[in-house]
Amino acid sequence: MTENEPELFAIRIIVENRKGVLRDIASVLAHRNANIMMIHQEIFESGPLDRMAELYVEYEDGDDRALIIEDLIALNPVKDAKPYQPFSNIYGTRVIIIGGGAQVAQVALGAVNEADRHNTRGERISVDTIPLVGERTVAQAVDAVARLPRAAILVLAGSLMGGDISRAVDRVREAGIPVIALKMAGSVPEHADLVVTDPIQAGVFAVMHVSTKAVFSIERVRGREF
Amino acid sequence: MTENEPELFAIRIIVENRKGVLRDIASVLAHRNANIMMIHQEIFESGPLDRMAELYVEYEDGDDRALIIEDLIALNPVKDAKPYQPFSNIYGTRVIIIGGGAQVAQVALGAVNEADRHNTRGERISVDTIPLVGERTVAQAVDAVARLPRAAILVLAGSLMGGDISRAVDRVREAGIPVIALKMAGSVPEHADLVVTDPIQAGVFAVMHVSTKAVFSIERVRGREF
Repeated sequence: MTENEPELFAIRIIVENRKGVLRDIASVLAHRNANIMMIHQEIFESGPLDRMAELYVEYEDGDDRALIIEDLIALNPVKDAKPYQPFSNIYGTRVIIIGGGAQVAQVALGAVNEADRHNTRGERISVDTIPLVGERTVAQAVDAVARLPRAAILVLAGSLMGGDISRAVDRVREAGIPVIALKMAGSVPEHADLVVTDPIQAGVFAVMHVSTKAVFSIERVRGREF
Repeated sequence: MTENEPELFAIRIIVENRKGVLRDIASVLAHRNANIMMIHQEIFESGPLDRMAELYVEYEDGDDRALIIEDLIALNPVKDAKPYQPFSNIYGTRVIIIGGGAQVAQVALGAVNEADRHNTRGERISVDTIPLVGERTVAQAVDAVARLPRAAILVLAGSLMGGDISRAVDRVREAGIPVIALKMAGSVPEHADLVVTDPIQAGVFAVMHVSTKAVFSIERVRGREF
Protein backbone atom coordinates (compact mmCIF):
# COMPACT_ATOMS: atom_id res chain seq x y z
CA MET A 1 0.00 0.00 0.00
CA THR A 2 3.02 2.28 0.21
CA GLU A 3 4.69 1.37 -3.07
CA ASN A 4 3.90 4.55 -5.01
CA GLU A 5 4.39 7.05 -2.21
CA PRO A 6 7.20 9.62 -2.50
CA GLU A 7 10.35 9.13 -0.42
CA LEU A 8 10.23 10.45 3.15
CA PHE A 9 13.14 12.02 5.04
CA ALA A 10 13.41 12.59 8.78
CA ILE A 11 15.34 14.98 11.02
CA ARG A 12 15.68 15.02 14.80
CA ILE A 13 16.29 18.52 16.18
CA ILE A 14 17.33 19.43 19.72
CA VAL A 15 16.15 22.95 20.41
CA GLU A 16 15.44 25.37 23.27
CA ASN A 17 11.82 25.10 24.39
CA ARG A 18 10.59 28.57 23.38
CA LYS A 19 7.36 29.66 21.79
CA GLY A 20 7.77 30.40 18.07
CA VAL A 21 10.50 27.81 17.56
CA LEU A 22 8.27 25.64 15.37
CA ARG A 23 7.43 28.66 13.20
CA ASP A 24 11.17 29.30 12.61
CA ILE A 25 11.89 25.65 11.81
CA ALA A 26 8.85 25.44 9.51
CA SER A 27 10.10 28.59 7.74
CA VAL A 28 13.47 26.94 7.00
CA LEU A 29 11.72 23.88 5.58
CA ALA A 30 9.27 25.96 3.51
CA HIS A 31 12.17 28.05 2.17
CA ARG A 32 13.94 24.83 1.02
CA ASN A 33 10.72 23.53 -0.59
CA ALA A 34 10.36 20.66 1.85
CA ASN A 35 6.79 19.48 2.45
CA ILE A 36 6.35 18.63 6.15
CA MET A 37 4.36 15.44 6.67
CA MET A 38 4.78 15.03 10.42
CA ILE A 39 6.25 16.88 13.37
CA HIS A 40 6.39 15.57 16.88
CA GLN A 41 7.76 17.55 19.79
CA GLU A 42 8.64 16.44 23.30
CA ILE A 43 10.33 18.12 26.25
CA PHE A 44 13.17 16.39 28.11
CA GLU A 45 12.40 16.23 31.82
CA SER A 46 15.79 15.12 33.12
CA GLY A 47 19.37 14.42 32.05
CA PRO A 48 21.83 16.64 30.18
CA LEU A 49 19.05 17.98 27.88
CA ASP A 50 16.67 18.84 30.75
CA ARG A 51 13.99 21.40 29.68
CA MET A 52 15.17 21.26 26.03
CA ALA A 53 12.73 20.24 23.30
CA GLU A 54 13.21 17.39 20.88
CA LEU A 55 11.56 17.97 17.52
CA TYR A 56 11.16 15.10 15.11
CA VAL A 57 10.22 16.10 11.54
CA GLU A 58 9.32 13.96 8.53
CA TYR A 59 9.21 15.65 5.10
CA GLU A 60 8.95 14.98 1.39
CA ASP A 61 10.77 16.75 -1.47
CA GLY A 62 13.19 19.53 -0.38
CA ASP A 63 15.91 21.05 -2.57
CA ASP A 64 19.00 19.92 -0.70
CA ARG A 65 18.86 17.81 2.45
CA ALA A 66 22.35 18.85 3.63
CA LEU A 67 21.47 22.55 3.31
CA ILE A 68 18.26 22.01 5.30
CA ILE A 69 20.34 20.60 8.17
CA GLU A 70 22.82 23.51 7.88
CA ASP A 71 20.03 26.12 7.91
CA LEU A 72 18.45 24.50 10.95
CA ILE A 73 21.72 24.41 12.90
CA ALA A 74 22.22 28.10 12.03
CA LEU A 75 19.02 28.99 13.95
CA ASN A 76 19.95 30.39 17.35
CA PRO A 77 17.78 28.15 19.61
CA VAL A 78 18.74 24.97 17.70
CA LYS A 79 21.44 22.93 19.48
CA ASP A 80 21.59 19.94 17.12
CA ALA A 81 19.94 18.61 13.95
CA LYS A 82 20.57 15.15 12.46
CA PRO A 83 19.00 13.05 9.71
CA TYR A 84 17.17 9.87 10.84
CA GLN A 85 15.21 6.96 9.40
CA PRO A 86 11.51 7.95 9.19
CA PHE A 87 9.04 5.96 11.34
CA SER A 88 7.28 4.63 8.26
CA ASN A 89 10.53 2.84 7.26
CA ILE A 90 10.86 1.38 10.77
CA TYR A 91 7.36 0.68 12.11
CA GLY A 92 5.53 0.84 8.77
CA THR A 93 1.81 0.41 8.41
CA ARG A 94 -0.30 0.06 11.56
CA VAL A 95 -3.11 -2.41 12.25
CA ILE A 96 -5.26 -0.99 15.09
CA ILE A 97 -7.25 -3.26 17.41
CA ILE A 98 -9.82 -1.75 19.83
CA GLY A 99 -12.25 -3.47 22.20
CA GLY A 100 -12.50 -5.83 25.15
CA GLY A 101 -9.25 -7.13 26.65
CA ALA A 102 -9.80 -10.88 26.16
CA GLN A 103 -10.77 -10.46 22.51
CA VAL A 104 -8.24 -7.73 21.69
CA ALA A 105 -5.52 -10.11 22.94
CA GLN A 106 -6.71 -12.94 20.65
CA VAL A 107 -6.97 -10.68 17.58
CA ALA A 108 -3.47 -9.40 18.40
CA LEU A 109 -2.22 -13.01 18.60
CA GLY A 110 -3.40 -13.63 15.04
CA ALA A 111 -2.22 -10.26 13.74
CA VAL A 112 1.26 -10.35 15.34
CA ASN A 113 1.95 -13.87 14.09
CA GLU A 114 0.81 -12.99 10.57
CA ALA A 115 2.78 -9.69 10.64
CA ASP A 116 5.85 -11.71 11.66
CA ARG A 117 5.61 -13.76 8.46
CA HIS A 118 5.33 -10.61 6.33
CA ASN A 119 8.03 -8.64 8.17
CA THR A 120 10.45 -11.57 7.82
CA ARG A 121 10.12 -11.00 4.06
CA GLY A 122 11.01 -7.31 4.38
CA GLU A 123 7.64 -5.66 5.01
CA ARG A 124 6.96 -3.44 8.03
CA ILE A 125 3.61 -4.03 9.72
CA SER A 126 2.96 -2.98 13.36
CA VAL A 127 0.03 -4.14 15.48
CA ASP A 128 -1.31 -1.56 17.96
CA THR A 129 -4.02 -2.23 20.50
CA ILE A 130 -6.06 -0.58 23.19
CA PRO A 131 -8.44 -2.48 25.45
CA LEU A 132 -11.35 -0.22 26.44
CA VAL A 133 -14.79 -0.42 27.98
CA GLY A 134 -17.89 1.76 27.40
CA GLU A 135 -19.70 2.99 24.29
CA ARG A 136 -18.50 6.59 24.49
CA THR A 137 -14.88 5.66 25.25
CA VAL A 138 -14.69 3.11 22.41
CA ALA A 139 -16.45 5.48 19.96
CA GLN A 140 -13.91 8.21 20.78
CA ALA A 141 -10.98 5.82 20.20
CA VAL A 142 -12.53 4.63 16.91
CA ASP A 143 -12.98 8.23 15.71
CA ALA A 144 -9.37 9.02 16.55
CA VAL A 145 -8.11 6.18 14.30
CA ALA A 146 -8.74 8.44 11.28
CA ARG A 147 -6.25 10.95 12.78
CA LEU A 148 -3.67 8.31 13.78
CA PRO A 149 -0.39 8.36 11.80
CA ARG A 150 0.08 5.35 9.46
CA ALA A 151 -3.17 3.61 10.55
CA ALA A 152 -4.26 1.33 7.67
CA ILE A 153 -7.01 -0.90 9.08
CA LEU A 154 -9.13 -1.17 12.25
CA VAL A 155 -10.37 -4.33 13.95
CA LEU A 156 -13.20 -4.04 16.50
CA ALA A 157 -12.96 -6.90 18.99
CA GLY A 158 -15.87 -7.26 21.40
CA SER A 159 -19.14 -9.00 22.17
CA LEU A 160 -21.52 -6.01 22.04
CA MET A 161 -20.93 -2.77 20.17
CA GLY A 162 -23.42 -0.36 18.60
CA GLY A 163 -24.84 3.19 18.83
CA ASP A 164 -22.12 5.83 18.82
CA ILE A 165 -19.52 3.18 17.95
CA SER A 166 -21.37 2.30 14.72
CA ARG A 167 -21.51 5.96 13.72
CA ALA A 168 -17.77 6.28 14.43
CA VAL A 169 -17.16 3.18 12.26
CA ASP A 170 -18.96 4.92 9.37
CA ARG A 171 -16.74 7.99 9.77
CA VAL A 172 -13.51 5.95 9.88
CA ARG A 173 -14.55 4.09 6.70
CA GLU A 174 -15.37 7.42 5.02
CA ALA A 175 -11.83 8.52 5.87
CA GLY A 176 -10.59 5.55 3.82
CA ILE A 177 -9.73 3.10 6.61
CA PRO A 178 -11.45 -0.31 6.31
CA VAL A 179 -13.00 -1.88 9.42
CA ILE A 180 -13.20 -5.57 10.39
CA ALA A 181 -15.61 -6.50 13.21
CA LEU A 182 -15.82 -9.72 15.14
CA LYS A 183 -19.24 -11.40 14.86
CA MET A 184 -21.00 -9.86 17.87
CA ALA A 185 -24.24 -8.42 19.25
CA GLY A 186 -25.13 -4.80 18.44
CA SER A 187 -25.12 -2.95 15.12
CA VAL A 188 -21.33 -2.64 14.54
CA PRO A 189 -21.09 -5.77 12.31
CA GLU A 190 -23.68 -4.21 9.92
CA HIS A 191 -21.40 -1.16 9.55
CA ALA A 192 -18.11 -3.05 9.03
CA ASP A 193 -16.47 -4.05 5.73
CA LEU A 194 -16.03 -7.63 6.92
CA VAL A 195 -17.34 -9.74 9.83
CA VAL A 196 -15.18 -12.54 11.24
CA THR A 197 -16.14 -15.04 13.96
CA ASP A 198 -12.68 -16.29 14.99
CA PRO A 199 -10.62 -13.47 16.58
CA ILE A 200 -7.30 -15.00 15.48
CA GLN A 201 -8.52 -15.13 11.87
CA ALA A 202 -9.74 -11.51 12.16
CA GLY A 203 -6.18 -10.47 13.07
CA VAL A 204 -4.72 -12.51 10.20
CA PHE A 205 -7.20 -10.99 7.70
CA ALA A 206 -6.32 -7.47 8.87
CA VAL A 207 -2.60 -8.02 8.27
CA MET A 208 -3.21 -9.78 4.94
CA HIS A 209 -5.19 -6.75 3.79
CA VAL A 210 -2.50 -4.17 4.63
CA SER A 211 0.34 -6.30 3.26
CA THR A 212 1.78 -5.16 -0.05
CA LYS A 213 2.69 -8.78 -0.87
CA ALA A 214 -0.42 -10.79 0.00
CA VAL A 215 -3.00 -11.46 -2.73
CA PHE A 216 -5.88 -10.80 -0.30
CA SER A 217 -7.83 -7.55 -0.30
CA ILE A 218 -10.88 -6.65 1.73
CA GLU A 219 -12.50 -5.37 -1.49
CA ARG A 220 -12.85 -8.98 -2.64
CA VAL A 221 -14.84 -10.10 0.41
CA ARG A 222 -16.61 -6.88 1.42
CA GLY A 223 -19.87 -7.49 3.30
CA ARG A 224 -19.17 -11.19 3.82
CA GLU A 225 -19.10 -13.05 7.10
CA PHE A 226 -16.60 -15.76 8.05
CA MET B 1 2.86 9.06 35.23
CA THR B 2 0.83 11.88 33.65
CA GLU B 3 -0.69 13.34 36.78
CA ASN B 4 1.35 16.53 36.97
CA GLU B 5 1.50 17.32 33.28
CA PRO B 6 -0.20 20.50 31.98
CA GLU B 7 -3.49 20.15 30.13
CA LEU B 8 -3.27 19.43 26.39
CA PHE B 9 -5.64 20.77 23.71
CA ALA B 10 -6.04 19.47 20.17
CA ILE B 11 -7.23 20.94 16.87
CA ARG B 12 -7.89 19.24 13.56
CA ILE B 13 -7.39 21.55 10.58
CA ILE B 14 -8.39 20.88 6.97
CA VAL B 15 -6.12 22.94 4.74
CA GLU B 16 -4.91 23.22 1.16
CA ASN B 17 -1.73 21.19 0.67
CA ARG B 18 0.73 24.02 -0.06
CA LYS B 19 4.28 24.57 1.09
CA GLY B 20 4.49 27.14 3.89
CA VAL B 21 1.10 26.26 5.35
CA LEU B 22 2.65 24.85 8.52
CA ARG B 23 4.67 28.05 8.99
CA ASP B 24 1.45 30.13 8.84
CA ILE B 25 -0.39 27.86 11.25
CA ALA B 26 2.59 27.79 13.63
CA SER B 27 2.67 31.60 13.49
CA VAL B 28 -0.98 31.81 14.63
CA LEU B 29 -0.26 29.48 17.53
CA ALA B 30 2.94 31.32 18.53
CA HIS B 31 1.08 34.64 18.39
CA ARG B 32 -1.58 33.26 20.79
CA ASN B 33 1.12 31.89 23.14
CA ALA B 34 0.25 28.25 22.48
CA ASN B 35 3.12 25.79 22.89
CA ILE B 36 2.90 23.14 20.14
CA MET B 37 3.62 19.65 21.45
CA MET B 38 2.72 17.61 18.36
CA ILE B 39 1.70 18.15 14.76
CA HIS B 40 0.78 15.43 12.36
CA GLN B 41 -0.09 16.03 8.73
CA GLU B 42 -1.64 13.72 6.18
CA ILE B 43 -2.91 14.19 2.64
CA PHE B 44 -6.35 12.87 1.61
CA GLU B 45 -6.04 10.65 -1.45
CA SER B 46 -9.71 10.28 -2.34
CA GLY B 47 -13.19 11.49 -1.41
CA PRO B 48 -14.52 15.02 -1.12
CA LEU B 49 -11.26 16.28 0.48
CA ASP B 50 -9.02 14.72 -2.21
CA ARG B 51 -5.53 16.38 -2.29
CA MET B 52 -6.34 18.48 0.80
CA ALA B 53 -4.15 18.17 3.90
CA GLU B 54 -5.35 17.27 7.36
CA LEU B 55 -3.29 18.80 10.13
CA TYR B 56 -3.67 17.58 13.67
CA VAL B 57 -2.10 19.81 16.35
CA GLU B 58 -1.71 19.27 20.10
CA TYR B 59 -0.72 22.26 22.24
CA GLU B 60 -0.34 23.47 25.81
CA ASP B 61 -1.15 26.92 27.22
CA GLY B 62 -2.57 29.44 24.69
CA ASP B 63 -4.38 32.69 25.56
CA ASP B 64 -7.82 31.93 24.20
CA ARG B 65 -8.73 28.64 22.54
CA ALA B 66 -11.74 30.10 20.69
CA LEU B 67 -9.60 32.91 19.22
CA ILE B 68 -6.98 30.38 18.06
CA ILE B 69 -9.68 28.55 16.08
CA GLU B 70 -10.97 31.88 14.66
CA ASP B 71 -7.45 32.99 13.62
CA LEU B 72 -6.83 29.64 11.94
CA ILE B 73 -10.11 29.73 9.99
CA ALA B 74 -9.22 33.28 8.87
CA LEU B 75 -6.10 31.94 7.08
CA ASN B 76 -6.81 31.70 3.36
CA PRO B 77 -5.77 28.06 2.71
CA VAL B 78 -7.59 26.79 5.85
CA LYS B 79 -10.97 25.22 5.05
CA ASP B 80 -11.92 24.05 8.55
CA ALA B 81 -10.54 23.98 12.10
CA LYS B 82 -12.19 22.19 15.04
CA PRO B 83 -11.18 21.34 18.61
CA TYR B 84 -10.68 17.61 19.39
CA GLN B 85 -9.72 15.31 22.24
CA PRO B 86 -5.91 14.91 22.29
CA PHE B 87 -4.49 11.42 21.65
CA SER B 88 -3.04 11.24 25.14
CA ASN B 89 -6.59 11.43 26.56
CA ILE B 90 -7.75 8.66 24.21
CA TYR B 91 -4.86 6.22 23.72
CA GLY B 92 -2.80 7.31 26.73
CA THR B 93 0.56 5.82 27.59
CA ARG B 94 2.11 3.28 25.23
CA VAL B 95 3.76 -0.03 26.09
CA ILE B 96 6.00 -1.03 23.13
CA ILE B 97 6.82 -4.69 22.41
CA ILE B 98 9.50 -5.56 19.82
CA GLY B 99 10.93 -8.95 18.84
CA GLY B 100 10.05 -12.35 17.42
CA GLY B 101 6.42 -12.96 16.45
CA ALA B 102 5.66 -15.91 18.74
CA GLN B 103 7.05 -14.16 21.80
CA VAL B 104 5.75 -10.69 20.96
CA ALA B 105 2.26 -12.22 20.76
CA GLN B 106 2.59 -13.79 24.23
CA VAL B 107 3.92 -10.61 25.84
CA ALA B 108 1.04 -8.72 24.17
CA LEU B 109 -1.42 -11.26 25.61
CA GLY B 110 -0.21 -10.45 29.14
CA ALA B 111 0.01 -6.71 28.52
CA VAL B 112 -3.40 -6.33 26.83
CA ASN B 113 -5.18 -8.29 29.57
CA GLU B 114 -3.47 -6.29 32.31
CA ALA B 115 -4.14 -2.98 30.47
CA ASP B 116 -7.81 -4.00 30.25
CA ARG B 117 -8.00 -4.18 34.05
CA HIS B 118 -6.44 -0.73 34.40
CA ASN B 119 -8.41 0.92 31.59
CA THR B 120 -11.67 -0.39 33.08
CA ARG B 121 -10.81 1.77 36.11
CA GLY B 122 -10.35 4.88 33.95
CA GLU B 123 -6.70 4.70 32.93
CA ARG B 124 -5.55 4.76 29.29
CA ILE B 125 -2.81 2.28 28.43
CA SER B 126 -2.19 1.12 24.82
CA VAL B 127 -0.07 -1.87 23.81
CA ASP B 128 1.85 -1.47 20.53
CA THR B 129 3.88 -4.21 18.92
CA ILE B 130 6.11 -4.92 15.97
CA PRO B 131 7.43 -8.39 15.16
CA LEU B 132 10.85 -8.09 13.48
CA VAL B 133 13.83 -10.23 12.55
CA GLY B 134 17.54 -9.29 12.31
CA GLU B 135 19.96 -7.43 14.59
CA ARG B 136 20.08 -4.22 12.56
CA THR B 137 16.33 -4.06 12.01
CA VAL B 138 15.52 -4.65 15.68
CA ALA B 139 18.23 -2.19 16.83
CA GLN B 140 16.76 0.50 14.56
CA ALA B 141 13.25 -0.11 15.94
CA VAL B 142 14.57 0.00 19.53
CA ASP B 143 16.38 3.29 18.87
CA ALA B 144 13.23 4.80 17.39
CA VAL B 145 11.27 4.07 20.62
CA ALA B 146 12.94 7.12 22.19
CA ARG B 147 11.36 9.28 19.45
CA LEU B 148 7.93 7.60 19.61
CA PRO B 149 5.09 9.76 21.00
CA ARG B 150 3.81 8.65 24.44
CA ALA B 151 6.11 5.59 24.65
CA ALA B 152 6.59 4.77 28.36
CA ILE B 153 8.24 1.33 28.49
CA LEU B 154 9.80 -1.18 26.06
CA VAL B 155 9.67 -4.98 26.23
CA LEU B 156 12.15 -6.98 24.15
CA ALA B 157 10.69 -10.38 23.36
CA GLY B 158 13.03 -12.86 21.70
CA SER B 159 15.38 -15.81 22.17
CA LEU B 160 18.66 -14.21 21.07
CA MET B 161 19.44 -10.48 21.08
CA GLY B 162 22.77 -8.68 21.52
CA GLY B 163 25.33 -6.46 19.73
CA ASP B 164 23.73 -3.37 18.20
CA ILE B 165 20.46 -4.15 20.01
CA SER B 166 22.17 -3.95 23.41
CA ARG B 167 23.70 -0.58 22.51
CA ALA B 168 20.26 0.67 21.38
CA VAL B 169 18.81 -0.55 24.73
CA ASP B 170 21.38 1.61 26.56
CA ARG B 171 20.35 4.66 24.51
CA VAL B 172 16.62 4.11 25.09
CA ARG B 173 17.23 3.80 28.85
CA GLU B 174 19.33 6.99 28.78
CA ALA B 175 16.34 8.72 27.16
CA GLY B 176 14.34 7.78 30.28
CA ILE B 177 12.41 4.76 28.95
CA PRO B 178 12.83 1.57 31.03
CA VAL B 179 13.42 -1.75 29.24
CA ILE B 180 12.20 -5.24 30.21
CA ALA B 181 13.86 -8.20 28.44
CA LEU B 182 12.72 -11.79 28.33
CA LYS B 183 15.33 -14.20 29.70
CA MET B 184 17.21 -15.06 26.52
CA ALA B 185 20.61 -15.72 24.92
CA GLY B 186 22.81 -12.75 23.97
CA SER B 187 23.77 -9.66 25.96
CA VAL B 188 20.41 -7.80 25.95
CA PRO B 189 19.29 -9.12 29.38
CA GLU B 190 22.47 -7.63 30.94
CA HIS B 191 21.47 -4.20 29.58
CA ALA B 192 17.80 -4.31 30.64
CA ASP B 193 16.22 -2.92 33.82
CA LEU B 194 14.43 -6.21 34.48
CA VAL B 195 14.63 -9.77 33.11
CA VAL B 196 11.50 -11.94 33.03
CA THR B 197 11.24 -15.59 31.96
CA ASP B 198 7.48 -15.87 31.34
CA PRO B 199 6.42 -13.65 28.39
CA ILE B 200 2.89 -13.15 29.78
CA GLN B 201 4.33 -11.95 33.10
CA ALA B 202 6.71 -9.63 31.21
CA GLY B 203 3.69 -7.97 29.59
CA VAL B 204 1.88 -7.69 32.92
CA PHE B 205 4.96 -6.15 34.61
CA ALA B 206 5.28 -3.59 31.79
CA VAL B 207 1.68 -2.41 32.23
CA MET B 208 1.94 -2.42 36.05
CA HIS B 209 4.96 -0.14 35.76
CA VAL B 210 3.29 2.47 33.52
CA SER B 211 0.03 2.44 35.47
CA THR B 212 -0.58 5.47 37.66
CA LYS B 213 -2.64 3.31 40.03
CA ALA B 214 -0.56 0.16 40.56
CA VAL B 215 1.86 0.03 43.48
CA PHE B 216 4.55 -1.64 41.33
CA SER B 217 7.52 0.26 39.94
CA ILE B 218 10.49 -1.08 38.04
CA GLU B 219 12.75 0.93 40.38
CA ARG B 220 11.90 -1.52 43.16
CA VAL B 221 13.06 -4.62 41.24
CA ARG B 222 15.75 -3.14 38.97
CA GLY B 223 18.38 -5.71 37.95
CA ARG B 224 16.36 -8.66 39.22
CA GLU B 225 15.35 -11.71 37.26
CA PHE B 226 11.98 -13.48 37.51
